[in-house]
Amino acid sequence: MVMRLYDLAGASDDHRFSPNCWRVRMALAHKSLEVQTLPWRFTEKDEIAFSGQGTVPVLVDGDTNVHDSWDIAGYLDRTYPQKPLFDSEQSRAEGLFIKLWVETQINPIIARIILVDLHGMLHDKDKEYFKESREKRFGMALDSLCADRPGQIAALVTALTPLRQMLKVQPYIGGKSANYADYIAFAALQWARTSAPVEVLESDDPVHAWRERLLDMYDGLARNTPLPKAA
Amino acid sequence: MVMRLYDLAGASDDHRFSPNCWRVRMALAHKSLEVQTLPWRFTEKDEIAFSGQGTVPVLVDGDTNVHDSWDIAGYLDRTYPQKPLFDSEQSRAEGLFIKLWVETQINPIIARIILVDLHGMLHDKDKEYFKESREKRFGMALDSLCADRPGQIAALVTALTPLRQMLKVQPYIGGKSANYADYIAFAALQWARTSAPVEVLESDDPVHAWRERLLDMYDGLARNTPLPKAA
Repeated sequence: MVMRLYDLAGASDDHRFSPNCWRVRMALAHKSLEVQTLPWRFTEKDEIAFSGQGTVPVLVDGDTNVHDSWDIAGYLDRTYPQKPLFDSEQSRAEGLFIKLWVETQINPIIARIILVDLHGMLHDKDKEYFKESREKRFGMALDSLCADRPGQIAALVTALTPLRQMLKVQPYIGGKSANYADYIAFAALQWARTSAPVEVLESDDPVHAWRERLLDMYDGLARNTPLPKAA
Repeated sequence: MVMRLYDLAGASDDHRFSPNCWRVRMALAHKSLEVQTLPWRFTEKDEIAFSGQGTVPVLVDGDTNVHDSWDIAGYLDRTYPQKPLFDSEQSRAEGLFIKLWVETQINPIIARIILVDLHGMLHDKDKEYFKESREKRFGMALDSLCADRPGQIAALVTALTPLRQMLKVQPYIGGKSANYADYIAFAALQWARTSAPVEVLESDDPVHAWRERLLDMYDGLARNTPLPKAA
């Protein structure tokens, strides 16, 4: 039976923007595993209550359900060892550092670029929940959080320095080919790309070229997802 | 024949502070490889001219000499595969990202904490070279660079966030035990510790506990090196 992934969606079913869900979709494609993605909204807690979780991604594989994008990656490598997402214990351990680099150094800046736009693209039933929970998390109104987009784009470019320097030596965080650490970092930029009609990278940035390579992978899986339109 | 490592020294032969040399010393100890370290000063270019390099570390292993701490690690893993510094290709590739994170996000802040003190501890013949080259690199006088030590210590604590978050899940960047990525990050803090009589980490910081574990390794190799004295 094909796996099912509960995947965050906006007002339209085909608007998929969640960075944690994009990690999983890239991981499944990496292993050539078929998946049916089910559009899910923040407030549809009942839909995933069976998993014991209130957020996605939730992956259902036969009788098993797994949540949390990091744990899903571990589950996939244990259950479907072909083309590993991490090729060793140390690779996985270092990947956890890179995950936390993305989550503490990159995602908070992207939030300051996109959250107002993203809020506007959510299903009506999600808008209040999203605004309240994000304003609580960041300790300020969304409008104030996103008040300096050019400054935050510049901060993002600076924060990406270690990745940029690395890309001058090798094409992927995984080395010659992409591994799950690449998907985690890529998913952050895919979150930006699918949430606001703004380009955050210059075309001559090595990070831009790397993102292009990831957008092309798996028959353009990430490139072909519907994008937000400029207002 | 025992290997020899040209190792940066201060005014006294036993003051060893170079982060790039500490990476190599930890790597050699990791593999239980014996080494004779030779004190070397910045201006002793003739001493290592045989290597084609103007900086250390330079490792001499029989008829082979290797320079650059990253390349030395690769040489050691190829030549002495026991207890690898990286256990896979992806582990090594991700390690390069972590190296560049240390070099672009951590080391520049430590420089702003310690360089004035370090300058004072150098051999007289190195002082002018060091001051000129570092002031050129940072585009300002050393005194100005190091004018706000409390602010830079706070910045360092913030910059270490991804490492701190990771250490709440696993004891080393390499996972259950340290690998070369740990030594790279540790060497940055060992550079601080051996260059200025100032504690940069709170005792309840998980990064502090991790540094303690690394200081204890290999019979206290890093802990037992002579430290600068408070002026």
